[in-house]
Amino acid sequence: MVIDSRTAYGFGARIEAPYDEAVERVKRALQGQGFGVLWEIDVRRTLKEKRGVDFRKYVILGACNPQLAHQILVAEIDVGLLLPCNVVVYEVDGGSVVEALDPEVALGLVRNDALAPLAAEAKERLGRALAEVARG
Amino acid sequence: MVIDSRTAYGFGARIEAPYDEAVERVKRALQGQGFGVLWEIDVRRTLKEKRGVDFRKYVILGACNPQLAHQILVAEIDVGLLLPCNVVVYEVDGGSVVEALDPEVALGLVRNDALAPLAAEAKERLGRALAEVARG
Repeated sequence: MVIDSRTAYGFGARIEAPYDEAVERVKRALQGQGFGVLWEIDVRRTLKEKRGVDFRKYVILGACNPQLAHQILVAEIDVGLLLPCNVVVYEVDGGSVVEALDPEVALGLVRNDALAPLAAEAKERLGRALAEVARG
Repeated sequence: MVIDSRTAYGFGARIEAPYDEAVERVKRALQGQGFGVLWEIDVRRTLKEKRGVDFRKYVILGACNPQLAHQILVAEIDVGLLLPCNVVVYEVDGGSVVEALDPEVALGLVRNDALAPLAAEAKERLGRALAEVARG
């Protein structure tokens, strides 16, 4: 992968594209890896409406690969608590940050060995999607 | 709390209420603790539409307390990867299971001490909401 590990719980990259373009590129790349976006939370708008505060442009996308999600739920019924996998985009000076929750870290909380290959596949696919976004 | 810890990553209870009633009770109780539901994923319908498979009644609710979410994001910008907090309801023989992701477990992945009191407050509020649901 050409992308950085930014945190202990996710991976992604800082790119030069402005926020709106970055969001569109992330959605397209996720779709190319079999992930639908089940919801989209506009953090900036939500905080303005609910709290009256100004916040940077920031979106949380709920990315779900239905085939993997089904296998994960069959292996562990309570794991809906950790689905789908969040992907965020936010604005920074001179560009945007795009990153995904690391499925191996999140599903590692479950301690169910049956999930390991599924988490690895989800991570591989998300990694390919974000690498594509980072390449531009 | 009168509710059980069902897993290493969440807490909740099995209750006698049927699924649809359980979902409504959970939403009301969350609202009473300052949590809005930012999205609602009907897992059964999604899996039917996307994969053609039959699955039990199962919903994932994205529960967000805007004040806590704002403080959490200010303390750690990348933590949108772990927001909002999922609450699930699914049908079982003779009733329903209701449970919440444990915010202290999820935010514990971040290793940022500033988040600890915020995670504790979120857990306390979610616990009160689910305890209310469990009492009926």
